[in-house]
Amino acid sequence: MPYMGLEEVERLLSTLRQQMTQKNRLLPGGYLYMTDLLGKPDYINAIGRLIASVFINEKLDAVMTMETKGIPLAYAVASQRSIPVVIVRRSSKVTEGSTVSINYISGSSKRIQTMVLPRRSLKENARVLIVDDFMKAGGTMKGMTSMIQEFGAEVAGMAVLVETKEEQPKLVDRYVSLLKLTIPDRQETPIIENGNVYDWLPKQHVNPTKVETKDQA
Amino acid sequence: MPYMGLEEVERLLSTLRQQMTQKNRLLPGGYLYMTDLLGKPDYINAIGRLIASVFINEKLDAVMTMETKGIPLAYAVASQRSIPVVIVRRSSKVTEGSTVSINYISGSSKRIQTMVLPRRSLKENARVLIVDDFMKAGGTMKGMTSMIQEFGAEVAGMAVLVETKEEQPKLVDRYVSLLKLTIPDRQETPIIENGNVYDWLPKQHVNPTKVETKDQA
Repeated sequence: MPYMGLEEVERLLSTLRQQMTQKNRLLPGGYLYMTDLLGKPDYINAIGRLIASVFINEKLDAVMTMETKGIPLAYAVASQRSIPVVIVRRSSKVTEGSTVSINYISGSSKRIQTMVLPRRSLKENARVLIVDDFMKAGGTMKGMTSMIQEFGAEVAGMAVLVETKEEQPKLVDRYVSLLKLTIPDRQETPIIENGNVYDWLPKQHVNPTKVETKDQA
Repeated sequence: MPYMGLEEVERLLSTLRQQMTQKNRLLPGGYLYMTDLLGKPDYINAIGRLIASVFINEKLDAVMTMETKGIPLAYAVASQRSIPVVIVRRSSKVTEGSTVSINYISGSSKRIQTMVLPRRSLKENARVLIVDDFMKAGGTMKGMTSMIQEFGAEVAGMAVLVETKEEQPKLVDRYVSLLKLTIPDRQETPIIENGNVYDWLPKQHVNPTKVETKDQA
């Protein structure tokens, strides 16, 4: 697997921070317009490589995401490991055969929601990495961990591209975030900081000696 | 762009035909269970490379698909060209800002449906390649061509992974299909043939001399 070095990590995060703080990205309800960025395969593939680098030492059998924005990210991560993607949906589709359905509480709106997954999607004991584009309180993430348990499988990790700083505490812990979003009152420009991803990168990433050795090789 | 040679094309199509004719894939309503195959990044990336090879001589500015099954295929194609993906949705999402909405007739069920696309998604005169996983009568494909016209953009091509043989004539012409599905009466196993993709591959693909030259290089 192509492994992402520290310099490339910072270059990627810096590009994303810059792009996301452009004007006109703020939408009603505390959301950020990211559709254009998530539409660019070069960004998506780089983000996928970064997330895969975080979990490089983990045994992974599948990547899970909730439809629809997280789908390209999930494939970008899964491509690095040649493992399948399983997509959780909001309602069952005729093209998916029999499904398992669970209810969960949306963290921010406190509404009861449903998510479904085809019965054939996940094997028992599979180690599953959850990937999504955006996390507010973490209700969807928590729902996906319940779904994984429902299949007798195991959560190997959780990663999001952007988490909000405001909603605290999150409904899940031990997640990786690449970026952290704050929307200041009465301002047009969101504040984007790095998330907790540097805490998660495997040791060889944060040890400068090893990075140098790698560069010289 | 890595270009797919004829032998690899046939190897890929043969693998897919074999996988799709496994038992237990037929679903009510004449659908085929493909979720597991579409979940495998290695297949998806190879299919994307094949579709990109068909359009290698075309100027393309974006790849369009309808949520949700076509999304990974669209990214796989777009990755080969480093062009953006635009995802048409069934209803507008709060995270997408203002949208353009059109109605279209689903080809098989004859129902009026809605599709929406964020206003910022497509530039005027952009050349757009439409990609989807499955086509019955072609209503969704036709809807996407209308959407592209609505934005003053241009359809550069259409490609589907699987078309059905039964629904004829299709509502669109000049589309590329990789595979063609027939569901025989009272049988458990679908019949999968190659689609029209060989008619579409650029000349160097179907000219054996040139292929040899390429192999020797």
